Amino acid sequence: MSVKVTSKDQVESILSKYDTFLFDCDGVLWLGNTLLPKVMETLNMLRSHNKKVIFVTNNSTKSRQDYVQKFDKFGLKVNKEEIFGSAYASAIYISEILQLPKDKKVWIMGQKGIETELHEVGYETLGGSDPKLNETLDLDDKENCPVYHLDPNVGAVVCGLETNINYHRMAMALQYLQKPEVEFVATNIDSTFPTHGLKMPGAGSCIEAVAFAAGRTPVSCGKPNPGMMDAICKSHKIDRSRSIMVGDRLNTDMKFGRDGGLATLLVLTGIETVENVKKLEEQEQPTYYADKLGDLFELLQ
Amino acid sequence: MSVKVTSKDQVESILSKYDTFLFDCDGVLWLGNTLLPKVMETLNMLRSHNKKVIFVTNNSTKSRQDYVQKFDKFGLKVNKEEIFGSAYASAIYISEILQLPKDKKVWIMGQKGIETELHEVGYETLGGSDPKLNETLDLDDKENCPVYHLDPNVGAVVCGLETNINYHRMAMALQYLQKPEVEFVATNIDSTFPTHGLKMPGAGSCIEAVAFAAGRTPVSCGKPNPGMMDAICKSHKIDRSRSIMVGDRLNTDMKFGRDGGLATLLVLTGIETVENVKKLEEQEQPTYYADKLGDLFELLQ
Repeated sequence: MSVKVTSKDQVESILSKYDTFLFDCDGVLWLGNTLLPKVMETLNMLRSHNKKVIFVTNNSTKSRQDYVQKFDKFGLKVNKEEIFGSAYASAIYISEILQLPKDKKVWIMGQKGIETELHEVGYETLGGSDPKLNETLDLDDKENCPVYHLDPNVGAVVCGLETNINYHRMAMALQYLQKPEVEFVATNIDSTFPTHGLKMPGAGSCIEAVAFAAGRTPVSCGKPNPGMMDAICKSHKIDRSRSIMVGDRLNTDMKFGRDGGLATLLVLTGIETVENVKKLEEQEQPTYYADKLGDLFELLQ
Repeated sequence: MSVKVTSKDQVESILSKYDTFLFDCDGVLWLGNTLLPKVMETLNMLRSHNKKVIFVTNNSTKSRQDYVQKFDKFGLKVNKEEIFGSAYASAIYISEILQLPKDKKVWIMGQKGIETELHEVGYETLGGSDPKLNETLDLDDKENCPVYHLDPNVGAVVCGLETNINYHRMAMALQYLQKPEVEFVATNIDSTFPTHGLKMPGAGSCIEAVAFAAGRTPVSCGKPNPGMMDAICKSHKIDRSRSIMVGDRLNTDMKFGRDGGLATLLVLTGIETVENVKKLEEQEQPTYYADKLGDLFELLQ
């Protein structure tokens, strides 16, 4: 049964059991542009106890470097190596697992973070932030309409959250995905994300439009894909039995931690409610839950 | 086993067996803006044999009246009552099956045809062709951003093919669909449609983005929904045993005819190949297939 963190003893027990704290970001550290209460104090407290902290985000719109700046804006000092984003995870998947040759190109339906991470591992990208994708397709103009001029060197399509989604982008992704040799990679498949007190369509919803058209299912690189956990554990030499995943979503963060063999802590500042926890079978419940991450700091005082 | 129509005898047999010919339009009568060969002659021949012809289309972008004009552009004379479109089917479904009170409004992600048909049956619509939907959402502007100002009288969301799909439309549909009392209706769920020698994303792909975000499955009003066949047979007093459905898609047109108890004729001018037919179990194969609809006319000469 999931244990609610409500006392100093419980926080001390958590500090004694775990050396590494993996954090989801949106809904845990901040909501949209607002830092959640006592997050900075909690992270400082963990670092002062010599805990390793790693930030794992399915937000593909930003590169790891963009994330360092986002943390900085909130007054939180982190370094690039502490961040694992789904854009980075997708670039690593294409480069290391698929081993797509570096002379192949990647067509992107998604935002800048994906481009940056793919460029860092050595791929040329198409689509993505190209402003031509905002133009209306004119199928009668065979000379200029891009659906007639596919690049034969495209070896993969990567899709992520695209708030500039339009029919042009969907149609181009579909044309490439009709080639069975073109790999189909999703940064993550979250159906929605919380912001401004609302649920907004997530990467998974944008990707689903393209996947349904193509009749294909992408490999998803973000949480809860265990490949992302393997990469994190390998690069940070983590002992899973002394690590805990902190997140605000049962079906991504908590599943990601549990499937990876980590303890889990659900915070209720994002998308879930305590009722959602209690509906689950015992083995699917998080190890702990708390009203907010900042409770770890506050309870310890 | 499906029979290929290749002789005058076969056409005469078809003419003796069936009084009513239901036609899919795109891929059967025309491809995009091009009328297919001998279509006019075939329709004239059927009418001269006193056959009833009915046109059944999943294209939701046009109302029945728009369709009359489209036929007219090709030199084909039809009247509004001979046309059953998925926009019309959706309006009938909401009005007659759901019996949504007429003081409720319908929010539309889709094109003009849906608005026209809903207005004809007496509903006020929101969304749809409203040019404000082309604006970028500014979630920080609580006073003006429409996601904060939902209309409490919206009782249904209708989605169809929307070549102006964008994040604003997806987000608005999602906000309404989070209310369990708001009905969710799809004009049709075709994943793609053929045009200009290409496959382009269909209504189903646009709808899937919204359905995935909301975690809901819409009722689909177009082919192959048997409700559409029931409405056609009722309003035209059709004897199903003496009727045949002509189409270019196995999973919509042919399924629609077969499930409705009609004979079926697949034409290969659209999306299917003869290999696709032969892959099917015998009971799922169309009664007949032909290279093109115009073969009925040509073989009879």
